[in-house]
Amino acid sequence: MVDVVKFSGEKEKFNPNKILKTLKRAGASREQSRRILKDVESSLKDGITTKEILDRVFSGLRETPGIAAKYDLKRALMALGPGGYTFEKYFAEVLKHYGYEVKINQLIKGKRIMQEVDVVAKKDSTYMVECKYYNYPGNYASTKEAMYTYARFLDTNSRMHNFDFPWLATNTKCSWSAIEYSKGVGLKITSWKYPAKESLQRLVEAKKLYPVTVLKTASKFVKQRLLDSGIIMINTLMEMDISELRRKANLSESELKKAILEARQISV
Amino acid sequence: MVDVVKFSGEKEKFNPNKILKTLKRAGASREQSRRILKDVESSLKDGITTKEILDRVFSGLRETPGIAAKYDLKRALMALGPGGYTFEKYFAEVLKHYGYEVKINQLIKGKRIMQEVDVVAKKDSTYMVECKYYNYPGNYASTKEAMYTYARFLDTNSRMHNFDFPWLATNTKCSWSAIEYSKGVGLKITSWKYPAKESLQRLVEAKKLYPVTVLKTASKFVKQRLLDSGIIMINTLMEMDISELRRKANLSESELKKAILEARQISV
Repeated sequence: MVDVVKFSGEKEKFNPNKILKTLKRAGASREQSRRILKDVESSLKDGITTKEILDRVFSGLRETPGIAAKYDLKRALMALGPGGYTFEKYFAEVLKHYGYEVKINQLIKGKRIMQEVDVVAKKDSTYMVECKYYNYPGNYASTKEAMYTYARFLDTNSRMHNFDFPWLATNTKCSWSAIEYSKGVGLKITSWKYPAKESLQRLVEAKKLYPVTVLKTASKFVKQRLLDSGIIMINTLMEMDISELRRKANLSESELKKAILEARQISV
Repeated sequence: MVDVVKFSGEKEKFNPNKILKTLKRAGASREQSRRILKDVESSLKDGITTKEILDRVFSGLRETPGIAAKYDLKRALMALGPGGYTFEKYFAEVLKHYGYEVKINQLIKGKRIMQEVDVVAKKDSTYMVECKYYNYPGNYASTKEAMYTYARFLDTNSRMHNFDFPWLATNTKCSWSAIEYSKGVGLKITSWKYPAKESLQRLVEAKKLYPVTVLKTASKFVKQRLLDSGIIMINTLMEMDISELRRKANLSESELKKAILEARQISV
């Protein structure tokens, strides 16, 4: 089996099932998936990069932009940057769709110092959410992030602001020992793949809460305009009145219509 | 008054007293100091960088390498990198000279996960020391580092390993709010300037515990060889038998003698 070089620089054996699984998840037909896999396998060589494989897959998904967008969710989340602020807003939006009351960027007087809390989320319990955003692949949230989040939680937890649990949310992976640690101190973690049933990927896919950065037909410029004007989810794009959209994002009607069309294909 | 651009990019008004104070501290005579300051002032222009000023000061200290070395302690500490490991060893050595029993790089089973503790230091109390090293100027240890250190302390503190206090040691500055936070949780901090009477600068200068990177006449190569062979302090350089030094560092006698000579000038 061929060695594939991951974004992190690590190598792993090529695994056809990974591609098939993701294609299936994105909604590709069996036949389309098989055809794409065959094409990828014909180009395999030792030391091939994940990016080369991804590019190959995408060229096979050209005619089905909706599927291509969903396949690429991980990269779309990394395009919410460069700073972490948009990811915070995005994650807060995701939580809202799951019934949380959310407030972002709260300045809270901790026991010792002022703390800027990324998201305050309330449902049955109240959570102090710390978002850790990475805008390039190969990264992961480490125990350092987990411990830091826990220590912030301890400091913010005063009589005035009673958080029940700390929560670390990240768009990438989480180290194994960060997870171990989190279990001991009651820290909730949401990372790309963890916890399996409520991972960020799952939360997004289950309710189709895709960020506008999944759009394939829109230019970078259009996507950035949307993000800058606070239109972060494709849902918002579909729900909003087009004249309001035009005013808010300062984009042409044709650009917006194209984006909305693709958003609809993705949401099917 | 002229604006000086600091390493961090911030500006501050040129302050002649800062230079005079540092020169005095390094042992320059009043006359030498005044001459150097005059030279610096003749070259001042708005937007001059700290580095340009430093270079000017050093050219005025050419004939007194011992003083030049001491003037440049901050940069010498930043040359212990690129990784943080040498700084950990160095800080442990400093603590030893202050009567601490030290152990470096201890793998300790925390309550939840394995923790790699940079330095375990014991005197009246037992400290879990976390070292935060920066190898370029303009940086500082933030509340994040302080909180992370505290959270590690909480996790390592089990019945088996009883640490009395956490301790954050850094070669640069510490943010004001990190210091505020530290007071509340009983975290000891040692940074470049803080606490005033027991800052890293003070600890080093009071007992002349200079790292070999202060040497001005030795090449980068020689200094790296010394560091790599575990000779981190100029004290060690002066105490060790020359034949042992040669064997350990694999350097020529003439290179070593030159280094020892300068070390003696610095230690006067």
